Amino acid sequence: MSTLEINAAYYRGNKTFTVEKTAVTPPKKGEVAVRIAFCGICGTDMHVFHGNMDARVGLNRIVGHEMSGVVESIGEGVTGITAGEHVVVRPLDHCGECPACTAGHEHICHKLKFLGLDTDGAMQEIWNVPAHTLHVLPAQLRLDHAALIEPVAVACHDVRRAALKAGEDVVVIGGGPIGILVAMVARDTGGNVVISEVNPHRLAIAQKLGFATVNPKDVDLVGAITTRTGGKGADVVFEVSGTQPGVDAMTAVAATRARIVMVAIHATKPQIDLFQFFWRELELLGARVYEPQDYEKAIEIIASGGVDADTVITDVSPLSEIQASFEGLDSSPTAMKSLIKVGA
Amino acid sequence: MSTLEINAAYYRGNKTFTVEKTAVTPPKKGEVAVRIAFCGICGTDMHVFHGNMDARVGLNRIVGHEMSGVVESIGEGVTGITAGEHVVVRPLDHCGECPACTAGHEHICHKLKFLGLDTDGAMQEIWNVPAHTLHVLPAQLRLDHAALIEPVAVACHDVRRAALKAGEDVVVIGGGPIGILVAMVARDTGGNVVISEVNPHRLAIAQKLGFATVNPKDVDLVGAITTRTGGKGADVVFEVSGTQPGVDAMTAVAATRARIVMVAIHATKPQIDLFQFFWRELELLGARVYEPQDYEKAIEIIASGGVDADTVITDVSPLSEIQASFEGLDSSPTAMKSLIKVGA
Ligand SMILES: [Zn+2]
Ligand SMILES: [Zn+2]
Ligand SMILES: [Zn+2]
Ligand SMILES: [Zn+2]
Repeated sequence: MSTLEINAAYYRGNKTFTVEKTAVTPPKKGEVAVRIAFCGICGTDMHVFHGNMDARVGLNRIVGHEMSGVVESIGEGVTGITAGEHVVVRPLDHCGECPACTAGHEHICHKLKFLGLDTDGAMQEIWNVPAHTLHVLPAQLRLDHAALIEPVAVACHDVRRAALKAGEDVVVIGGGPIGILVAMVARDTGGNVVISEVNPHRLAIAQKLGFATVNPKDVDLVGAITTRTGGKGADVVFEVSGTQPGVDAMTAVAATRARIVMVAIHATKPQIDLFQFFWRELELLGARVYEPQDYEKAIEIIASGGVDADTVITDVSPLSEIQASFEGLDSSPTAMKSLIKVGA
Repeated sequence: MSTLEINAAYYRGNKTFTVEKTAVTPPKKGEVAVRIAFCGICGTDMHVFHGNMDARVGLNRIVGHEMSGVVESIGEGVTGITAGEHVVVRPLDHCGECPACTAGHEHICHKLKFLGLDTDGAMQEIWNVPAHTLHVLPAQLRLDHAALIEPVAVACHDVRRAALKAGEDVVVIGGGPIGILVAMVARDTGGNVVISEVNPHRLAIAQKLGFATVNPKDVDLVGAITTRTGGKGADVVFEVSGTQPGVDAMTAVAATRARIVMVAIHATKPQIDLFQFFWRELELLGARVYEPQDYEKAIEIIASGGVDADTVITDVSPLSEIQASFEGLDSSPTAMKSLIKVGA
């Protein structure tokens, strides 16, 4: 099999992906070869496309991590997994020795390798991955839907960090692709969710998905949440906007003892109303990627229809069209999640 | 008894307290009359002295809440408390009906009344208080030491919010009177405490109390904590400085999944390194006053000597000298806690 060739999409810099033939390498000891079915385009992949991560990924990198696939073959020493099983990869490889790993927080390992950025990823027909990264799927779960498991696992991690309980009032600040998934997982957990968003296209999608929405450019968000919650405020807030107004809103809408989850990555240091943290004993919780139980929860939610996968997936293109797919995502105001159908 | 007169210290504005005679009023239904032994001067009382709280307290207010005393008499309907018992008052009166109260967080009631600010306080020989605010002391606990229970209860609340476990690494940013109490309670809980402070007088007191210290003007604080913790960072950080450099340090010294307790009251909105919250999954916890169990813990710590009361109490003056005591606190670089001996 090692003389066979597969198609792979390489990031070559300058907003360019090229699909090229490459030789198949057999899985090494501890690895599993996965035949990729679908791979979603992540916001991080868009950053690569825009050239923001050239120093990290180089100009000879196969990206992609939001994938689904079928076990093709198994390397030496791997047990508990069988060729033909449907799988997804949790694309984190940890060191096992740093303070985070020894404290049991492998997902925030000080030397974490993210597969598909720090190594080659899933935009190729066969991907060799460490066996410990695999989660087996129920056979009936559609493989296009399964490509949403990674981003849904991010949302599951966010909601689990919040310790959200059924019946609690939730505000999601920012209704883009990530905010919508957080909102869906929060609703599936029993939260009463309101999405705050300024973009009319995103508001329309949120409403189509059945969410209450507020456009804070038109309506006083704090007043709206105060009224909705009988003066209490939101028990849980997800800050997904990455903006100073979002950070201002997150403390303003919060109930006494509310939990605020920081989903957005703030590159600059926003100003925070620390007085409200004191006054209402608020909690701010950072959240990064996911742990194995978040993957199991994401599989369960997608299998049960708790996430409306067919609305979230707005485009599916073959691997040969990857360049057009990235360009399209860049210019579309309504795109949510674009998938690449990697296999033939 | 209602024709008897007692001495009381009134705040009259313009940095002035006057000690005046006032008629004793018997405790109302649900109240208990406490003969005050000692009353500490709180930072909040200093704010009153400086005229910063005139709108809230007016110019006819008896301040004071860090008190100890002896039950003098009991109002109608009060049970479970006996004249002669030694007590302290938890100076919070809540409404019982707001969202915070109904959620069980009475200490952050939306309509919270703070006794000694929103009502008359303990700088008078006999103080009538709601019975539900009382905690009974062990008879052998010295009443001067017991006047520290209120500020120690604040520190106990801070440490409990952090869920500090024995053996964890702790950094206290700011070694003033509050920071020192937080450090003592954290040490009593089993934490390995380092105090970061720039004032040499405060550093000397912290060292005298046996604490490891860092002066971040002389030494790189992050480097010192990294070395001390084998690269891990601090598991728990208390931000007591109320400054932007303190807020910068709180995220910089934090370990993966560290808990940061916001003890200081930040009147302005500092900039916060939210990226570190994401990257290390940090938690920020607001903390305000105390709950009943914090009072019970504070009583236990002071009774057991876990707080070095004789070092913390740097001055005791009679009620007649209250004006000089406030003025002295204002100008002393080494004062920690000044007590007023209220009774004869
Ligand atoms: Zn992703
Ligand atoms: Zn590690
Ligand atoms: Zn106080
Ligand atoms: Zn209340």
